[in-house]
Formats: sequence, structure tokens, C-alpha cells
Amino acid sequence: MPAPLLLVTRLPPDEEAGWRRALARAMPGETIATAADHPDRTTVEIAVVANPPAGSLRDLPALHWVHSLWAGVERLLQDATMPPVPLVRLVDPMLARAMAETVAASVLHLHRGLHVYAAQQRRRAWIPHPFQPATGRPITILGLGEMGRAAAELLVSLGFPVRGWSRSGAPVPGVSIFSGEEGLTDALDGAQVLVNLLPLTPETRGILRASTFARLAPGAYLINFGRGAHLVEVDLLEALAAGQVGHAVLDVFEQEPLPADHPAWSHPGVTVLPHVAAPTSRASAAAVVAAAVAAFRRTGLCPAGIDRQRGY
Amino acid sequence: MPAPLLLVTRLPPDEEAGWRRALARAMPGETIATAADHPDRTTVEIAVVANPPAGSLRDLPALHWVHSLWAGVERLLQDATMPPVPLVRLVDPMLARAMAETVAASVLHLHRGLHVYAAQQRRRAWIPHPFQPATGRPITILGLGEMGRAAAELLVSLGFPVRGWSRSGAPVPGVSIFSGEEGLTDALDGAQVLVNLLPLTPETRGILRASTFARLAPGAYLINFGRGAHLVEVDLLEALAAGQVGHAVLDVFEQEPLPADHPAWSHPGVTVLPHVAAPTSRASAAAVVAAAVAAFRRTGLCPAGIDRQRGY
Repeated sequence: MPAPLLLVTRLPPDEEAGWRRALARAMPGETIATAADHPDRTTVEIAVVANPPAGSLRDLPALHWVHSLWAGVERLLQDATMPPVPLVRLVDPMLARAMAETVAASVLHLHRGLHVYAAQQRRRAWIPHPFQPATGRPITILGLGEMGRAAAELLVSLGFPVRGWSRSGAPVPGVSIFSGEEGLTDALDGAQVLVNLLPLTPETRGILRASTFARLAPGAYLINFGRGAHLVEVDLLEALAAGQVGHAVLDVFEQEPLPADHPAWSHPGVTVLPHVAAPTSRASAAAVVAAAVAAFRRTGLCPAGIDRQRGY
Repeated sequence: MPAPLLLVTRLPPDEEAGWRRALARAMPGETIATAADHPDRTTVEIAVVANPPAGSLRDLPALHWVHSLWAGVERLLQDATMPPVPLVRLVDPMLARAMAETVAASVLHLHRGLHVYAAQQRRRAWIPHPFQPATGRPITILGLGEMGRAAAELLVSLGFPVRGWSRSGAPVPGVSIFSGEEGLTDALDGAQVLVNLLPLTPETRGILRASTFARLAPGAYLINFGRGAHLVEVDLLEALAAGQVGHAVLDVFEQEPLPADHPAWSHPGVTVLPHVAAPTSRASAAAVVAAAVAAFRRTGLCPAGIDRQRGY
């Protein structure tokens, strides 16, 4: 029997229990322990974490690697006590598919003016608006990781002209690719929809700001499904007031749950989603973790972790 | 110079003028006249119509055929004074594409619970709901004409299991096809989304009724983009109250514009759209009409009209 896997989260007890069951089902040969089980911390080789409290991975002398149940790991990297072992973030094809769906749902909703018709319904106004073909609605996606690529491919299949901006500049079929600071200007120029799917790093923090909005077509739509800290909220409110941004769909915020007194809740130009753009499927995520654990047990080699310098 | 084409509509003057310009641009060699021009009615061979007033095509002894600018012609067929010449309805690939987009936008919106999150936003409630994969959300489309086929193919590409019900039973790739009254039961059974794109005929009038809703999965979504008379409104209100239908998106109504005192406007379970699911592109529709007119001028043969018995 190998040493137990240590599950560390800051989730409500029922959610943590759900993860524990999912992991146990995916790995019948492993023991899943939490701190409450008082496992022998000197033998733990693998930790499975979801937004763990700072310092919770200290005092694990045998720790070989850490698997995050989330795709975004920027909080883990802020924890100075994180041991210097490989840190693996969740890369789950189900997650990419769910994200691409939410991007398509939001883009089509805005593209066909359904947010305008919803507002009209509240005042009982029957006003059809002109139709614009998808081919005339350029979309720019920031970030072409597994989620950005899936979203880009889906939007291309719907007939939209799609530009993508990524660090690597790696090609995506049907998408015009840009990278670097200069490339960002070209990627944004005249876009009618801006979709942010970047990881949060020191370089991307605050990238959704006034100078970015100014490059878009007047009245452009903003979809932020990355992280709250990508967005400079005061700049968005100004761009909405000026009409430079026509509507924003925000799934992520600096503080979550979004505080009840936050202006986004009642802003007619903002759609608030409760961090659901790419909801993790426990079964699917547990299967991804189980595959990594099985490979480690078989080979003794740790899976490849993220680049801590790069931040993802 | 051939005899003028007679344009007959019941549209506001600026809309009729827009159609006249679009038709003139698409057919530089033809003359487009309206009743206000007092053309010689004895020479008119072709009428181009959009919901014309009853009786307006009488006294056209040389009339060879009529082209509708709309895809739905059920009102024309109710006019007993319609001359017995071929009646051509608009079949425009742009229209099918626009319809497929609106179907996809509505399905994805409901599928991802965005209508629920919109209601939560109004009461500042941050409540994520479980994610359901598209593969577990069966959709049934009633009507597989050019619009139904385009919608079905798009939903298949998004990963939904799609069943279709049509008169002909003609195959559509990736779609399970049903036809006939017995086939309707099998097509509906357990569907989580029902999309109506049928033409309005005596057989399909009132097809969206209590017995139809009862076949669906509890809480199913209804999307009516066909005609208002397909829906028995009182049955829908009861099904919504009972939770058998979870939400309805209605683009068409028996009376349009929808009267200000209609209960749909304020029903939390109903999304009202002002007949915009498949907005006609004037340029694209005029090009379709122009191609039919050119073929008639070249060959002297009338284009194939609809089957008046069948109704489309």
C-alpha cells in the first residue's frame, strides 16, 4: 500500500468530501487523506490541492509533486512556503470544451443582440434590430492555451473572423495569430468582441484596461473568463459610460463571491456570472489526476510541473 | 423593356422603399413598380410580395407567378382571391444560417443556465450550478426544411444528441430522423430541448400543446421559432407553472407586435423576441428573387411554386 495522497482544499466540507469520493473512485488502489485524518506527514509523496491555505504544504519532507484540481494556479505561486517540487495544474479536455461552450454562448448572445431584446422585454418594447452576419464580426481571443484554442476553433466554425494573441504564437487552424507587445495592438485593432482567457501572471495583470479598450471597435463586447485581476474595473466602467465597450460579460472578479455592494451587479451593461464559465467536472478531473498518479507509481518519475517563472 | 414587376407589401413606407431599392439593385434590367406608380396592371407578369393585403393580386390577367419575400406563406394561402399561379417562397441560405445561429444562441444560453444566472444577478445572488455536458442534453427539432437542417447540423457539431421530425423523413447527417404521428412520440420522448421550425399548416397548427410537452423531460426548454399559431399558449402557461417546461423562448406570436398586456412579456419563464430569429437580409433575398426572374426571362418557364395542398 503506497503512502496516502494528501488532499488539501479550502472548500466547504461537502465539496471537499465530493472531491475525496471522486478521487477515491478514480484511484481504487490509493488512499486519500485529509489533515483531519492525521496521516503520517513524513511519508506523503503526492498532494492534491484546490486553493489550499497558505503554508499547508509545509512539513512534508517526502513530497515529490503537487497536483492542482484547478487550471489556474496563481494563488499557489503567491504562497512563499510552497515547496519547490513540480506543481501540476489541471489540463482537462472536458474543461476546455465547457469553456469553449460558454464563450460561444456569450458571443452568440451578444452577436444576435439577445441582451438588448432582454432589456426591451422588461419595458415591453417590440423593436427588431438589423442583423449582422458573423463574417462581419471580428473576434479577438487573448490566450490560446487548451481553453483558448478550443474556443477559437468553435468560433471559427460559427463563421466569425478570429484573431488570437498568445505568448508562443503557435498556430491554430483558421485563426490569425499574434504575439508580443506589438502583436497585441494588431490583434486588438477594430475587434468587435474581446475574449480574455489568459493565465494571470505579472505580465497579464491589468491587461484589460483603457488603452486596450481604445483599440477595439466602438461599442465592442468584452468577455472576461480569465481572472478578475486581468481587468481594471474603473477603466471598464468608464469605457461602458463612453460607449467604447457596449457590454461586458464577467465570470471572474478580484473578490469572489462578488460582494453584494459591487456596482457590477446592477450595471445594465454588465452580465455577472458566478465563476461558472468552465466548471470542473469532478469525475473528469479525478480521472486526469489518477492518470498522473498511476504514471508516477509505475515510473517513479514526477509529471512535468508548470514554469514558475512564467506563472503557468 | 419587359413589363414592370409589381411589388406589393403591407410594410411601413420606409421598409417598402428599402425593399424596392434592394430589388432594383439586384435587377438593373427590370422595372419595379408599386400600386402608387399606377402601372398597367394588364401587363404585369410577376408580383413580388411581402404579406400583401388580401385581394391585392386580383385584376392581374397576365400574372404568371408570385415570389414571396418571406419564407412563411401561410397568410397568402388564406387569401381566397390569390390567383392560381405558382407561388414561390423565399429559400435563402443566409436565412437558414441566421436561424441556425439564433437556435444555437438560445440552446447554449439555456443549456449553460445563463437565464438562471441572469435572474440571480437581479437579486445579487452568487450561486454556481452543476454543469451538464452537451452530450447528455438531447434536443429535438420539429421541421427539417432548409432552416431545420442548418440548425440540426450546428447543434450536432456542438456535441448535442439531436433528433429531428419531418414530413419527408429525409436524412440529415448525425441526426436521428422521425416522421409521422407515431414518429412524433418517439422524437419527443425525454427531450430536454424542443425546437420548433415547422411551417404553419392545418396539420401543424397547435402542435406545441399539453400532450407534446408531457412527452418531454421534466423542466425541458421550448424554443418556438416557427409561427405563433403552432403554440397553444394556455397549455404553455400551465406547463411552465407545473415545471414540465422549464423555460420558453418565443420569437413568434399570433398577434405581432405582441400586445403590451400579453402575459408573456412579464413571465419569468418566457423570453420574448420580436420576430428576429431569422431576419431577412434584403440584399440576399433580392438576389434570390433576381435569379428566379432572370431564369423566367431567359426560359419563359415559371419557377416551381409551393404545394398549396401541403401549405409550404
